[in-house]
Amino acid sequence: MIPKYHAAKLHELPDEYLSDVLPIAKKIAVAQGIENYNILQNNGRIAHQMVDHVHFHVIPKPSDSDNEGLVIGWPTKEMPKEELVKYYEELKGKL
Amino acid sequence: MIPKYHAAKLHELPDEYLSDVLPIAKKIAVAQGIENYNILQNNGRIAHQMVDHVHFHVIPKPSDSDNEGLVIGWPTKEMPKEELVKYYEELKGKL
Repeated sequence: MIPKYHAAKLHELPDEYLSDVLPIAKKIAVAQGIENYNILQNNGRIAHQMVDHVHFHVIPKPSDSDNEGLVIGWPTKEMPKEELVKYYEELKGKL
Repeated sequence: MIPKYHAAKLHELPDEYLSDVLPIAKKIAVAQGIENYNILQNNGRIAHQMVDHVHFHVIPKPSDSDNEGLVIGWPTKEMPKEELVKYYEELKGKL
């Protein structure tokens, strides 16, 4: 799914285009009749973006096998709670 | 990021709630000042959904290492072109 406004990354896309995206993703999921799926949008080559125009993937997951659909790894890191709280407050201040 | 309307999966969420999501994801990306990141939303236990309420992940990707950020695998399958065209037409009819 590809918004018509040209931008490479999600945070460069005006809100009015962003608002249109997920209702369309929903239509695509419903049209396919899928119950298990992932919505994925990648920003930056190191974050798996291959084409420099914002686009969204609706990826059916037919089974829990690693041979079909999206397979993810998500390594976690320890962070001292006080640092986490500080970062949370900092971000909150910017929102 | 968690919409206030309760639904387990994206396709169960009314459009007005869906429209709100990505402009907020954008604010979160901008507040963090990140250039490389993934937006991920999972539907169904076999598709990596752990909590049965629609939610969206904004996942910074600080480096291309498999030790931080989102790591993805996306096995592809061969499909005869005529079948693919047929499926495309079928889906288009439902959109």
